[in-house]
Amino acid sequence: MSRERVTLFDTTLRDGAQTTGVDFSLDDKKQIAALLDALGIDYVEGGYPGANPLDTEFFKSRRTAKARFAAFGMTRRAGRSASNDPGIAALLDSAADSIVFVAKSWDYQVLVALGCSLEENLDGITDSVRAAVASGRETILDCEHFFDGYKANPEYAIQCAAAAYAAGARWIALCDTNGGTLPHEVEEIVRAVSVHVPGDHLAIHAHNDTEQAVANSLAAVRAGARQIHGTLNGLGERCGNANLCSIIPTLMLKPEYSEKYEIGVTEESLRGLTKISHALDELLNRAPNRHAPYVGASAFATKAGIHASAVMKDPRTYEHVTPESVGNSRRVLVSDQAGKSNILAELERLGVPVGREDPRIARLLVAVKDKEAQGYAFEGADASFELLARRVLGHVPDYFEVDRFRVDVERRHNARGELETFSEATVRVNIDGQSLISAAEGNGPVHALYGALCKDLGKYQQYIDDIELLDFKVRIFQGGADAVTRVLIEFGDKDGETWTTVGVSPNLIDASFQALLDAIQYKLLKAGA
Amino acid sequence: MSRERVTLFDTTLRDGAQTTGVDFSLDDKKQIAALLDALGIDYVEGGYPGANPLDTEFFKSRRTAKARFAAFGMTRRAGRSASNDPGIAALLDSAADSIVFVAKSWDYQVLVALGCSLEENLDGITDSVRAAVASGRETILDCEHFFDGYKANPEYAIQCAAAAYAAGARWIALCDTNGGTLPHEVEEIVRAVSVHVPGDHLAIHAHNDTEQAVANSLAAVRAGARQIHGTLNGLGERCGNANLCSIIPTLMLKPEYSEKYEIGVTEESLRGLTKISHALDELLNRAPNRHAPYVGASAFATKAGIHASAVMKDPRTYEHVTPESVGNSRRVLVSDQAGKSNILAELERLGVPVGREDPRIARLLVAVKDKEAQGYAFEGADASFELLARRVLGHVPDYFEVDRFRVDVERRHNARGELETFSEATVRVNIDGQSLISAAEGNGPVHALYGALCKDLGKYQQYIDDIELLDFKVRIFQGGADAVTRVLIEFGDKDGETWTTVGVSPNLIDASFQALLDAIQYKLLKAGA
Repeated sequence: MSRERVTLFDTTLRDGAQTTGVDFSLDDKKQIAALLDALGIDYVEGGYPGANPLDTEFFKSRRTAKARFAAFGMTRRAGRSASNDPGIAALLDSAADSIVFVAKSWDYQVLVALGCSLEENLDGITDSVRAAVASGRETILDCEHFFDGYKANPEYAIQCAAAAYAAGARWIALCDTNGGTLPHEVEEIVRAVSVHVPGDHLAIHAHNDTEQAVANSLAAVRAGARQIHGTLNGLGERCGNANLCSIIPTLMLKPEYSEKYEIGVTEESLRGLTKISHALDELLNRAPNRHAPYVGASAFATKAGIHASAVMKDPRTYEHVTPESVGNSRRVLVSDQAGKSNILAELERLGVPVGREDPRIARLLVAVKDKEAQGYAFEGADASFELLARRVLGHVPDYFEVDRFRVDVERRHNARGELETFSEATVRVNIDGQSLISAAEGNGPVHALYGALCKDLGKYQQYIDDIELLDFKVRIFQGGADAVTRVLIEFGDKDGETWTTVGVSPNLIDASFQALLDAIQYKLLKAGA
Repeated sequence: MSRERVTLFDTTLRDGAQTTGVDFSLDDKKQIAALLDALGIDYVEGGYPGANPLDTEFFKSRRTAKARFAAFGMTRRAGRSASNDPGIAALLDSAADSIVFVAKSWDYQVLVALGCSLEENLDGITDSVRAAVASGRETILDCEHFFDGYKANPEYAIQCAAAAYAAGARWIALCDTNGGTLPHEVEEIVRAVSVHVPGDHLAIHAHNDTEQAVANSLAAVRAGARQIHGTLNGLGERCGNANLCSIIPTLMLKPEYSEKYEIGVTEESLRGLTKISHALDELLNRAPNRHAPYVGASAFATKAGIHASAVMKDPRTYEHVTPESVGNSRRVLVSDQAGKSNILAELERLGVPVGREDPRIARLLVAVKDKEAQGYAFEGADASFELLARRVLGHVPDYFEVDRFRVDVERRHNARGELETFSEATVRVNIDGQSLISAAEGNGPVHALYGALCKDLGKYQQYIDDIELLDFKVRIFQGGADAVTRVLIEFGDKDGETWTTVGVSPNLIDASFQALLDAIQYKLLKAGA
């Protein structure tokens, strides 16, 4: 049975740039375009050339190899010809393959916000689309506020879509700009519109303001639309755009969709989805959403002991798809609720050899619960968990001991009367009975401590020269006098390996130092030192 | 027109306890039950008495005033009578108003996981429900894996539901345990089941594994179900349960639902929803999801300059409901993309008086962009933004100046040979030409600095005695040698006011100190010192 093609249109670099706290650099944009291209997205909307220097620069050359490279802009202004509109000129001068125009399709907005007549707005759509088509570009019209407009005046909303189609637009995107439309309304309205514009020319552009952007996108496909607009990780203004990281696996892994539709993403690139989702967060320095469908660290995580033993016997009991299909992995959480099954599953995943009936398992369980009661969180710190487990199981040598450390931070005026802040640390370690004391300065206290600790570890020095501190997170998790600080530190090495460790103490520096120590010992363990 | 009643069943304290990183204390459970009761939830499922000592203790008394208090447990074991089953005894001994049994309804799971016959499983359902009903309790059956079970063997899945109904269960909850069912499937299957069990006895229990738990819950209501199971903020295993914080406002504010259905939440308590959502995160020490529909800090936030000016003219242009209806507020973001409209809107919200054409607005815009280029993020630090704005506008006195500070952290062996860590800080401030130097010890360096800074501020001391450091967050947002640390600190005072400040520096201590200084100066400003 031949399947219908659904195309994916990514607007991470344009609508996604409206996300609170997100500001793309030129380099970010290039990297994200490459990720999308590799994933098999059909269209990459790169921004709004002419609106700001960065986007103009970005559109000087084509930034995708396979995907169509799309530029966004407004239809011509009222009272001006398309050939005499600087906004349209910027679009046509760009290296874009496809031109996306946005136009209002809600009568109220046309009259009030634009202050032009309904007819003038239709003429603007027609002229702009014609100008882009005449330049040889594939053209897309974003009908802003389409669903709210349709509810207010269905005839006019449809006229806007139909005008663009008649002028030669390849796709008419029905935008739920405010994000408040419900899935059954989307399905009904898309079906009604497809009488006037064929479904294989209709796209859906949904926002997540009722937490239904994914459902709205899929409802539109069921009603006949054949293009979905969305963003990676659901980036976007307010509550975000439709999340392609949820839509893509649903289209590919659920027979209800995969038997009817095909998309440009291959099974192989789907297995890269989790990595791409995390790479985007990494690039933007956002904490990934652990609970994100398909790609979140917890998406295939089981906490309850009874569930853990069931999922180990038969994953189908608590998994709707296989984690491997999206490049994610099953996790059986080591947590306060952890039972023996969870610990065994985690040790198996880490490749730590131990028999099911080994009495040390019970000791490890006690050690984990004890640490967690103090505030440790091993769910996000695999390396510290592995060290703890291997210590209880007797696999970790005592590489060295830290006798003492000290760190000072001082802000004072320098000789030129400028305020300056200095950080300095000393660490004394004992290796095979020999004392080694090192001092270092740093940008801050943890950096100085890290410098002093790694400066001279004697015979172990060769193993740690390539490690790098990548990320550092601090959280105080009880307020007031009992406050405890939890520090998570991520490290990486030249081989691209990364590992995370945890330290807990009422003292931030103490907690950080524990995490630093764990990280170095983990590296020594892995290197077979 | 009379509307049909839909009841809300909250399982934050039971299924929500499976969330990665969440561990409720007894006190947490009491507080959350009170929040749910105040909101107007119909059922509060408190946990699994008999399964662990905490839940058994929690069920010793009724923890809700208005809401039904529900206890969760398993149906009787195969080969045992209900009256002789310790699990059922624990449920019946509890102070619960309602008893929720979970039973498998997927033939494969009954045969493989339970290892009993399909008939025995049905008998277990019937006997357990009868025992609870006989004790005078309202009874609910959770049909685990209902949708997967229905797809495999619809007759058997329906038999499970029908057996419970025939035995007197008030509600039969159809659970999408693995979370992989799609909205149109839910609608179709609920409709089919309602032929055998009336819709006003059917509940939907959805999980978010395809990001459609909200859509699935609403689809079930459209198909006839009249109870929704969910959690606050969508807590729950893997990707979470259906998010009541999204479902409640949709049911109440969207005419498609509000004209047909009514729920137990009043308009007034709906206006408390944002606060309740944040209170839960606060209690669990989770960072709230800024992008959460309705209740997120960014749910009504506008970033783009052109949107900002439109939303100020007419909020309907970018808001699907009014932020006030859910107790949230409109925010026009001060960000790198900020234009004059955004700054003016933010100043208006903060109550900072300034004319639209005041030339200092342009200076403030430059100052904000300059700070943001250094790494400041004012979106999450209103107090620092207000201080900056008022400084540029000339409203902030120079209360005092810090000449210098120093903080030491040292870990060493004490006289008894135990490792101990000490933190000590000194701060010298200048107030009206007078130098005041103070020293303090603390749990850690920031605490010691805060102690020294607040120890003696001379004539300002009276204003700051009641402030408390509530939360402290650190993020390094560029890796490697250019790493910059951003510290956000939240403070509160006796009146329950809270405010957040930001500091940025390559040095963690320096950044923290900036945030501490801002916090104190903000308090002095607000106190009119």
